[in-house]
Amino acid sequence: MGTDTSLRIGIVGLGSMGLGMAQSMVAAGLQVGGFDTSHAAVEAFGAGGGRMATSARDAAEAADIVVVVVVNAAQSEVVLFGEGGAARAMRPGGTILCCATMAPDHARRLAGQAEALGLHYLDAPVSGGTAKAATGELTFMASGTREAFAGARAALDAMGSTVYELGDEAGIGASFKMVNQLLAGVHIAAACEAMTFAARLGLDLRKVYEVITAAAGNSWMFENRVPHILDADYTPRSAIDIFTKDLGIVMDMGRSEKFPTQLAATALQMYLMTAAAGMGRDDDSSVARMLADIAGVDLPKPASTER
Amino acid sequence: MGTDTSLRIGIVGLGSMGLGMAQSMVAAGLQVGGFDTSHAAVEAFGAGGGRMATSARDAAEAADIVVVVVVNAAQSEVVLFGEGGAARAMRPGGTILCCATMAPDHARRLAGQAEALGLHYLDAPVSGGTAKAATGELTFMASGTREAFAGARAALDAMGSTVYELGDEAGIGASFKMVNQLLAGVHIAAACEAMTFAARLGLDLRKVYEVITAAAGNSWMFENRVPHILDADYTPRSAIDIFTKDLGIVMDMGRSEKFPTQLAATALQMYLMTAAAGMGRDDDSSVARMLADIAGVDLPKPASTER
Repeated sequence: MGTDTSLRIGIVGLGSMGLGMAQSMVAAGLQVGGFDTSHAAVEAFGAGGGRMATSARDAAEAADIVVVVVVNAAQSEVVLFGEGGAARAMRPGGTILCCATMAPDHARRLAGQAEALGLHYLDAPVSGGTAKAATGELTFMASGTREAFAGARAALDAMGSTVYELGDEAGIGASFKMVNQLLAGVHIAAACEAMTFAARLGLDLRKVYEVITAAAGNSWMFENRVPHILDADYTPRSAIDIFTKDLGIVMDMGRSEKFPTQLAATALQMYLMTAAAGMGRDDDSSVARMLADIAGVDLPKPASTER
Repeated sequence: MGTDTSLRIGIVGLGSMGLGMAQSMVAAGLQVGGFDTSHAAVEAFGAGGGRMATSARDAAEAADIVVVVVVNAAQSEVVLFGEGGAARAMRPGGTILCCATMAPDHARRLAGQAEALGLHYLDAPVSGGTAKAATGELTFMASGTREAFAGARAALDAMGSTVYELGDEAGIGASFKMVNQLLAGVHIAAACEAMTFAARLGLDLRKVYEVITAAAGNSWMFENRVPHILDADYTPRSAIDIFTKDLGIVMDMGRSEKFPTQLAATALQMYLMTAAAGMGRDDDSSVARMLADIAGVDLPKPASTER
């Protein structure tokens, strides 16, 4: 089944994830208009062959699908349904594919607003990071009506290698993503706690990495983030502030559901301490630097003096 | 290099780990005497071709190597150096291979006691569980002098598939093991928190397992323990009380080192809550049952009515 190149797509949000996703759709032969509040981001998209839009509404003009890749529910609502928003510019019966991480209640609310305008809504948070966004190999944790899945299919195929169809209404995809974020956030903080503890015990940290990644203490995040600590490279691949936000959403959900999430609560405090120490925009492995600074523990220093 | 079948080995502790380790050594052609305070355990060892010893001292009589697989440092000290202990029965210049999980200070103290008797001491905690103990495929996180490694080699080769040589003195192996236990303990508790949270959100838990094990939220422990929750099978492969003990050691080390281990502290409280609720001897995934009981969340029930 070839790509239907007559489909018009709009994408709002051309950040580290959105730009790669937009370019994957262009590469698949789709007509894509892209907008971001950063003009540099829009120009980067234009340089790669995309149509540079001047607003969310312009990106969405007569679009069959609008992909929203902004940071949270509030931004998603503004770019879709606010003044000059994308939704009212879309082709009637079009489909919104909303990728922001948010509480399921918010996803349900946005879906209701879309449906009131005669649009379909796919709750479709992603996993995979910027590298997989760029290569069109993201994982979508998606839920929505059969019509929403059908309407979004061309964009999903272009951006993702795995599309989980998790249920027939908005909110389920968001819930899966939040469960993943709870674990991811705890595991990064645990990796940082363990590595700084190991440093305090005087262990060879590269050896710790070798042993733990082959042992029962391993996690996807330990394996992925600890090299940042070993290389003393805190350039943000994903920032501390992502987890102050996402574990904050877990906390809100826990209070709303009257459900205790003790480890997520503790991990959130560790991210907040790291942000409070001025490292909110640094790589999320900076929790290790925060702990090392408090305890006077030496972590690896950058190899060159250029940094 | 063939096995030196003239070597005499003693092993003290024939529990879920020790029995498999003892049998691996018998299978490798070594002469092994085994003792446990449980007579049934000694008989199980005898049925597999091992020499049934009547005491720790008897197991260690003229032994070149004594392997200690008891639950903690205090038990290790008693069986080695207490009245009727193993150490004084060993061949002069023999090697103690101590596998219990303990704080590095305790490993150093036991090594000092061994050396005062003219014996070598290998600090050699293990990872891999009962299945790998039975097949001789354990991982050893070992440290000690060159002589201790050389003296213990035949036993290490018979019991393990991977032997990390982590340093030239006792305590380093113990430290690596404690870093692993910190992570393992946090990850099991996080898996239980995430799965019960998912249940509260009404998600399909088997689908959660499928999605998370393919996503960035995965951990070795999530992948290994969550099936116990899905199958409602809390038969102890490893018990809650192992982690009240091991995270307790992490707490002791943290206080001694003045180093905060916030996630480990939180996880320990979750294991203690589970033990307090009467599940200390059940599988460590019982943290999920504890949370589900508190919050009135339904987890999977056993498939049959026989349980």
